[in-house]
Amino acid sequence: MTRRDFTLAGLGALAAAAAMGSTHGRAATPEPVGQKADRDGQNTLRVAFLLFEGLTALDMVGPATVFGGPSFAVDYVWRDKKPVYSEAASGRMGIMPTATFDEVASTDILCVPGTSNPYAQIVQKDLVDWVALVGQKARWVTSVCTGSFILGAAGLLKGYRATAHWTMVDELAYFGAVPVHERVVVDRNRVTGAGVTSGIDFGLSLLTLLRGENEARAKQLTLEYDPAPPFTGGSPKSADPAMVKAARAGFAEHMKKTAPYARQSLEDAAKRLEVSVSTKLEL
Amino acid sequence: MTRRDFTLAGLGALAAAAAMGSTHGRAATPEPVGQKADRDGQNTLRVAFLLFEGLTALDMVGPATVFGGPSFAVDYVWRDKKPVYSEAASGRMGIMPTATFDEVASTDILCVPGTSNPYAQIVQKDLVDWVALVGQKARWVTSVCTGSFILGAAGLLKGYRATAHWTMVDELAYFGAVPVHERVVVDRNRVTGAGVTSGIDFGLSLLTLLRGENEARAKQLTLEYDPAPPFTGGSPKSADPAMVKAARAGFAEHMKKTAPYARQSLEDAAKRLEVSVSTKLEL
Repeated sequence: MTRRDFTLAGLGALAAAAAMGSTHGRAATPEPVGQKADRDGQNTLRVAFLLFEGLTALDMVGPATVFGGPSFAVDYVWRDKKPVYSEAASGRMGIMPTATFDEVASTDILCVPGTSNPYAQIVQKDLVDWVALVGQKARWVTSVCTGSFILGAAGLLKGYRATAHWTMVDELAYFGAVPVHERVVVDRNRVTGAGVTSGIDFGLSLLTLLRGENEARAKQLTLEYDPAPPFTGGSPKSADPAMVKAARAGFAEHMKKTAPYARQSLEDAAKRLEVSVSTKLEL
Repeated sequence: MTRRDFTLAGLGALAAAAAMGSTHGRAATPEPVGQKADRDGQNTLRVAFLLFEGLTALDMVGPATVFGGPSFAVDYVWRDKKPVYSEAASGRMGIMPTATFDEVASTDILCVPGTSNPYAQIVQKDLVDWVALVGQKARWVTSVCTGSFILGAAGLLKGYRATAHWTMVDELAYFGAVPVHERVVVDRNRVTGAGVTSGIDFGLSLLTLLRGENEARAKQLTLEYDPAPPFTGGSPKSADPAMVKAARAGFAEHMKKTAPYARQSLEDAAKRLEVSVSTKLEL
């Protein structure tokens, strides 16, 4: 596709997304519970984000912003309707679920955000069961950051290439996945993003797959996504090796204190999934 | 500062941020209402994000993620404690306020996120009054996207260089600001970010000013901020001119329908602020 080769489709989507954006000075009316297909007569795709206590909000809000607008019907799904709080390290923000596990039996796109402690999530049976149930039938099974641990624990990544936050990506082997150190990894209908901020790249990449380059380019321009990080070194590939080493050590020290059950939870998952992990990773 | 010239300070901050991140498998306990200084004996900086109906969640969640952790005490402030909903175009997510206007009389860092319809916000007296009250005394007065319209309406940008989403940045002239087409603009203690995704760049830039390069670099690595947009063209400077033109037209059309009072609200603000705008902008 050449630079000038776009049509009004993309721009129409842009304008339409903007048209959905305003609250006209009135209080916004929350969407009713549950997901609706074919809203406004369009081929609306349903997106279900898993919520849980201690999630990293940005993992989810990046793609949720990409999937905002009339083309998608977005739900935030948790076991009940009480607010869940993002982890302190990402601003402890209270987020309202729009639907419960019981209310969402299927979706087009399942998206699971991450957390600095996925070990605490992969042992929650109702959460893992819901992800397995919905993920088995979803058209797209996706995650950002360590959300892939939850997909993995639900048996959805066996034999798939997948990624996660750089500090933990290799542990995906416990779920039978093939760990890949890339920012966005697409393997058949599994699309996984790396750490936190990758959610925006992940979202735009998936939007391109779903709706084509025009709409994704228009969305990228709408979101003014022309990133200018203040430093290089946002990945272990470009950061000072000593800083990477110290960061790894800091995380390991922290996890030893707060999640001493980390290795056990991974080994339990591997056993349940009948995955044999040859090398014991240093967590 | 050379590549290797960093100290354990930054890495300590990284590990500490991680240490604050876990919920240890228990339900997270939301912070009590209001802001606390000197948490954990550190020189904690208070951050107050303004909430309002129809905000663009990513504008806020980007910097909230950067300011998560023990160095900062983050509040989400609105006129009451009921959830506010982000605009549909950004995923209509319900966010819980942690404090009301009445409960937060001062802060170290005021940060105002944007919306596709800031015109609906700058006419809300209690909102603008609170921003003016807190902003006059804050150490840092900041915004992302069209949050600068709200700072401007509160009289906080007169004579300051500032930015906003590329479609609307020139309108900042109505508030006596000097519109600047850059991603992050620092003028004395005013720090403003451009559209939506700029919030991450804004947050890391402000973190550098507040805590130095070590901590900002460590945070950038923690957030794996090594962006890889699928396309060029995320800003009007790099996008296809025809796409930019069509996007502008789409927005203008949309605003004509949903905010016919847009120009009036700007002119009223200019009059109140005693700002004379020589050229009538095409909105």
